[in-house]
Order: sequence, then C-alpha cells, then structure tokens
Amino acid sequence: MTADPSPVGARFERCFQGLAAVGRTGRGGYRRLAWTEADVRARAWFAREAAARGLAVETDGNGNQWAWWGDPTAGGAVATGSHLDTVVDGGAFDGALGVVSGLVAVETLAREGFEPHRPVAVVAFADEEGARFGVPTFGSRLLTGALRPADVLDRPDAAGVRLGDAMAAAGLDPAGLGADPGRLARLAAFVELHVEQGRGLAGTPDAVAVATGIWPHGRWRLSLTGRADHAGTTAMPDRRDPTASLPTAISSAHRHATAGGGVATVGRIEVDPGTTNTIPFRVRAWLDARAPDAGRLDALLARWDADVRGDAAGRGLVTDVVCESRSAAVTFDADLCAVLDTVLGRGERAAPHLATAAGHDAGALAAAVPSAMLFVRNPTGVSHSPREHADRDDCVAGVLALRAVLAELAGPPRA
Amino acid sequence: MTADPSPVGARFERCFQGLAAVGRTGRGGYRRLAWTEADVRARAWFAREAAARGLAVETDGNGNQWAWWGDPTAGGAVATGSHLDTVVDGGAFDGALGVVSGLVAVETLAREGFEPHRPVAVVAFADEEGARFGVPTFGSRLLTGALRPADVLDRPDAAGVRLGDAMAAAGLDPAGLGADPGRLARLAAFVELHVEQGRGLAGTPDAVAVATGIWPHGRWRLSLTGRADHAGTTAMPDRRDPTASLPTAISSAHRHATAGGGVATVGRIEVDPGTTNTIPFRVRAWLDARAPDAGRLDALLARWDADVRGDAAGRGLVTDVVCESRSAAVTFDADLCAVLDTVLGRGERAAPHLATAAGHDAGALAAAVPSAMLFVRNPTGVSHSPREHADRDDCVAGVLALRAVLAELAGPPRA
Repeated sequence: MTADPSPVGARFERCFQGLAAVGRTGRGGYRRLAWTEADVRARAWFAREAAARGLAVETDGNGNQWAWWGDPTAGGAVATGSHLDTVVDGGAFDGALGVVSGLVAVETLAREGFEPHRPVAVVAFADEEGARFGVPTFGSRLLTGALRPADVLDRPDAAGVRLGDAMAAAGLDPAGLGADPGRLARLAAFVELHVEQGRGLAGTPDAVAVATGIWPHGRWRLSLTGRADHAGTTAMPDRRDPTASLPTAISSAHRHATAGGGVATVGRIEVDPGTTNTIPFRVRAWLDARAPDAGRLDALLARWDADVRGDAAGRGLVTDVVCESRSAAVTFDADLCAVLDTVLGRGERAAPHLATAAGHDAGALAAAVPSAMLFVRNPTGVSHSPREHADRDDCVAGVLALRAVLAELAGPPRA
Repeated sequence: MTADPSPVGARFERCFQGLAAVGRTGRGGYRRLAWTEADVRARAWFAREAAARGLAVETDGNGNQWAWWGDPTAGGAVATGSHLDTVVDGGAFDGALGVVSGLVAVETLAREGFEPHRPVAVVAFADEEGARFGVPTFGSRLLTGALRPADVLDRPDAAGVRLGDAMAAAGLDPAGLGADPGRLARLAAFVELHVEQGRGLAGTPDAVAVATGIWPHGRWRLSLTGRADHAGTTAMPDRRDPTASLPTAISSAHRHATAGGGVATVGRIEVDPGTTNTIPFRVRAWLDARAPDAGRLDALLARWDADVRGDAAGRGLVTDVVCESRSAAVTFDADLCAVLDTVLGRGERAAPHLATAAGHDAGALAAAVPSAMLFVRNPTGVSHSPREHADRDDCVAGVLALRAVLAELAGPPRA
C-alpha cells in the first residue's frame, strides 16, 4: 500500500461527494430509485467521472454501465464496482462506496504508473435494490440470465408505471434486456467492495473484511382476504377482519427467524381500502426472510406459513402466499477469496472473514464469473437508512485494499 | 299510509337510480369522497332533483345543500335528509337512502295535496364520512359549531391536498365555513332516515326502527417510531422494528373491545418507508373505537394505550397516541322520538328501538336541534362495503314512514 494515503483520501472525498449530491432527500437520506430522474443523474455522474479518468464508458443492454481501462474485447478482464441506486430513504454508502472506490482505485493505480496486463472495468449495475419494482439485483441477474426479461418488463411500480416504460423514459431500450454470455465470458473476475451492513468489524482492529458468502433469502407476499364492513356497527364476533391475523403474520415470522438464527422483516403492509372507519376487506404484508442455510430458511417459511394459515382459517379469512423472489445461498470463489486473503494479509494479521444476509450484485455474478467481495467497516451496522455510515479512514483503507487487489489480479503473471 | 305503494316505489326507484349512477367504481361500490369530481356531480344531481320537485335549493356556508318546501326564513321548519358522500368503496345506501327518501317523501306529500303548515327542508350534509380528510360529520358539526374552521382548513388528504383548497376547487368558498346559529334557530326538528348498519331488524317483521341514540366513539392515531435498518443484515436482537408492536396494537384493541361490549377497528396502517427490504422507522395505525357508554369507551382506550406503550417500551420504540376525533354519546330528543313512535306504531305493533355505534349527522345536529332517526332494515348488516343492501320493499316502507312523520310534524297543530 502507498506510504502516504492523503492523495487517495482527497481523491476519494472529491469523488464521493460528487455522487452524494445526487438524489439526497430532506431527511438526509437518499432516494435514487431505478430509472427515476435521480437515477438518470447518477448515471450521468458515473459517465462523467469515468471519462475524466480516461475510461471508456458503455452501457450494456441491461442498463449496467461499464468504464473500461484497456480493451473491453480482449477478454480475461478484472471488474470491480457495485450500484448507484438506493432504497427509499437509504444511506450514502450502500452501492455508492463500491463504485466510488473502484473509480478511485483505478485512478490511483494509473497515477502510480501501474500498467494493467489485462483489461480492468469499473461497473455500476442497474437497480440492485429493487426498491421501485421489487426486483433486486435487476441488472446483474438479467446479465447472467437468472432473470428473464418477460418476467419483469410488465412489473408496475407503486404508481402503476410499467418497468419497461420507466426504462424507456430513462433513455434505455427495454428490447435490449437479457442474458449476455459473451460479455460475461470476457470477465476473469469480479470483486465488489461494499459497506458492511452489520457490526462484524465494529470494535475490531480491522477496517476491511473478505466476504465468504451470502445467505439464502427471499420475499414472500401474504394476502389475507376478509370482508369489508362498517367499523362501528359490525359486532366483533360477526367480523371477518383481515387485520386480525396480522399479529400472527408478524409475530410468527419474528419468532421463527430468531429461533433459527435468521432474520425476518415485514417492512411493507397495505390495507384495503385503508380508511379508519371501514373494516378492511384485504391486508397484504410482504415478508423478507433470510437464514444461514436453505434448510433453515425453508423451516422458517414452513412454520410461518402454517401459523398464518391456521390463524386466518379460524377467522374465516382466505390466505394466499406468493414467493416474489428467492435467491439461493452464494459461496464466493475460493481461488479469488484466497487472492484477497493474500493481499489483505500482507499486514500484521490475516483478514477477517464475514458472511452476509444481504443480496449483492457479486452474488448474482457468482453464478457466471469468479466473484468475491470486500466489506468496509460500519461502526453502527445501520444500513438502508440515512444514518448508514463509514468513517473516512475506513473508506480510504477500502480503496487501498481494492487498489492492491486490482494490482494483483491485473498485474504481471506471478512466476 | 297510502293504500297503493306502487307509485311511491316507482318514484323511489327512479330517484335512487339517478344517484346510484354517480361515483360508481369498477367493483360495484361507490367512491364519492368530499369535494371530488364525483361529489360535485352528486351535488349537481341533488340540485336538479330538488328543482324538479319545485323545491328551492341553497347551499349554506359549510357546503350543506338545503332544498326548501315553503319559506326558509319562516322558522319552525322540519328538516330531513342525510349525506351524499361515501367511504372509499362504500355502498349505494349509506347516506344516499336518507336523501332520496326525503326527496321522494316530500314529492309524495305534494302529489297527495298535503299543505305544510311549516317549512319542510331536505338536506344533504357535506362530507359525513370524513373518508378523505379524516373529519367525519364535517358539514353538520361545522354548522353547530362543534368543529372550528381553523382546525380543519389545513388538513391534507392522502395526496397532500389541503381541505380548504379541495373545497375551493369544488366551487365552495372556504371563507364561509363556521357555526350558523341563525339557520339552526329556524329548525324545529331534524329526522334522518338511514339504512341500518347492523342486523337489528334482520329476521324481524319490521322494516323500520326508531333510533334511541348513538354510542360514544372516536379515532385515535398511534405512531410507533423505531429505527430504519437493513432487513438482511440487522440481527433480530439489534432491531428497533416498530412493526413488532403492531400485533399488540391490533390484538389488544380487539380483545378489550370484545370484553367491554364495544367495537374496535384498525382499518388504516401506514409503514414508513414501506419497502420490503428495509426495517421501517415508523408504523402508524389508526384505531376506531366505540362503546355503549363513555365509561366503557374510556376503559377500552386506557387498557389499549397501556398495553401498546408497555409492549413498545420493551422494544425500544417511541409511542405517540393522538385523539383525532371523539364524539360523545347522543340520546335523541325524547319528544321527537315519541312522535316517531306514535306514527310508526299506528300499525299492529310498536316500532322497534335500536341504538347504533355509527356516527350520523343527526347525532351532530342533536346538540342544537331536536333530532331523531329512522333505520331501514339491512338484511346482512353489511355497511361501508359494495355489498351493503336494503330490499326495495323495505326502502319503500322507509319512504312511507318518513312521509307519515313529515305529515305529522308539518301538518296542522293537533287540537
């Protein structure tokens, strides 16, 4: 690593603040949802920053942006990057840190006179969060073929706008969506740097960790249907109030997740018609569940499903559960992780290892390209929130780690 | 009552179907929310129907429409009516039945050659449901002074439109809002006919009942504030997830209502930011609670409040409960109810008596004018729903009952 980190720190700060000005909300958070005006501005920012570093920018058919150092067609390329979109009222680091760190790491290598022996790319994947259309890791999963265009094009956002129309309005042709094996074949490795989203590094001496894998996780939509009635005049025993089963739907998910060492969140609830003086005819609740392995995730879901159906049936409600998405467990590439271990372990200690329960583009890419991740310390663990944070020193440590990894992967072959 | 009800039935059908064409939704329900385009069309319908019957129509400063048979300024007037607005996806009868029955009863008396000894008015009160701005019995409570204009003018609807702006857009000057004691002083009695909203008359021989009073009721807004976090990476014990206290908020309300012979509904829930993969920072839930008397309503609220605060405090959440509205118990005017009893009891049986847990304009008017209500049988008791229903024969029985009441109240003084 460089003896004097301050130029890297200044480069990081300038680049990070440029992106941090895009899509900021009044509450100090960020709202860069896919294909919105804020997302379009973030994409323009990426193209400008890449061009300013002499990188050639292209957008693939799935809306992912690639900034190339070297010949994109040469093959054997090393890619790094993450995403620019955020959740609703998300933080400044999730996704952004990986893209900014990639650009600054490449710039630093270039200023140091490093000459890559293979192409290097910084990538910004489209719609990683899925906060608008409910399709997370959109760009990376379309790229690998894990998502089919026909299954996503007609998905509506909360305002009823079709995904395909939203893309087109943002200047992307939805006809270009789909698997791109040729592009993937030209990649030898993908390394995503990301702010940690737990407290695995908090209070430790390490600012950067190597990811071991991603928990299996998914989203399920529960619909409870009862009967609309007057909130004043319908006696309690005569009701078929779907909110009456919501306590079980929430508590059961939390209880089984806790028991199995997983996590469960009911972060979205919609009540129809949703007026104070009407007993609703329908409640929908979305369950996000994750567990250390598929068996425990299956068990969580099966127990939750049985609890909810049993409770709802006793109240005369109709229950429907739909799996909106499910991602299998990801174990990152062992050889690539060994390289990260070696590079990060050149200091006094071996680099720490962490698993995560968050989905990432690297998890999607792992199906097609040797992939790995670096996590940068998050002192509170808070994520998907305006209060998400990483110290500047830790961010710079992340850039330097990524720079060392790229130098190793794109440098001259070892004897 | 008339020997041949069929002309009344035909008049009722024609008038009822005219209104039933306004604001109908695809699901067979109605959406005539205050000051919307559908509400404006319903108001135009009322003005046309009144004019067609030779009644003089005026709109008071609170947006209530009055159709006069006789001199509005003479004093000692007898008024009947209800409201034209609906809840979201409401039924065809709530409010509408009272207005239509009033118009048809007056038309029938006029065709029969009845000459009123005092003015008779059919009134359509503004925004009885409060479905858009959360202010039920808006027009009638402003009229009596129970609501102050300053407390309602800035209330936003779900889209952020101010109540005052919505009124103005509908052609009403919000500067005219407020108590109108002079108008109230010219009323001797108000009788509201309404579809029953429970099953008190279902299965009995009676199509029409006399209301005894209205339960005390209110609306409370619960806010549970926690901390936004990533749904995947935040361990269950590290969360401050406000949805975790929603089960208690719902179950406790239902349990205490059932125990106290009251009713409780959590018909509106809002989760912020409301995305599947983010632990919410806030949940808001609106409680509608009603009980046979104030003591039992107070007890329900106190127990619910204590349960929710206790549960939320244990989870590190901040709890806030705001009373958005509360209506005291109403006992209808004894003398007026006695007249209704006498008129309805001219058949073989005394008229049945019913209390109700629903708020009504008659409940608001009762503070200033001798008021009473008639309920028309609802075979299923379903209300605030597209499935709300009353049989045509029962509707006609309601018109005839109202006609007889108006004839008694506006007829020549008894010797």
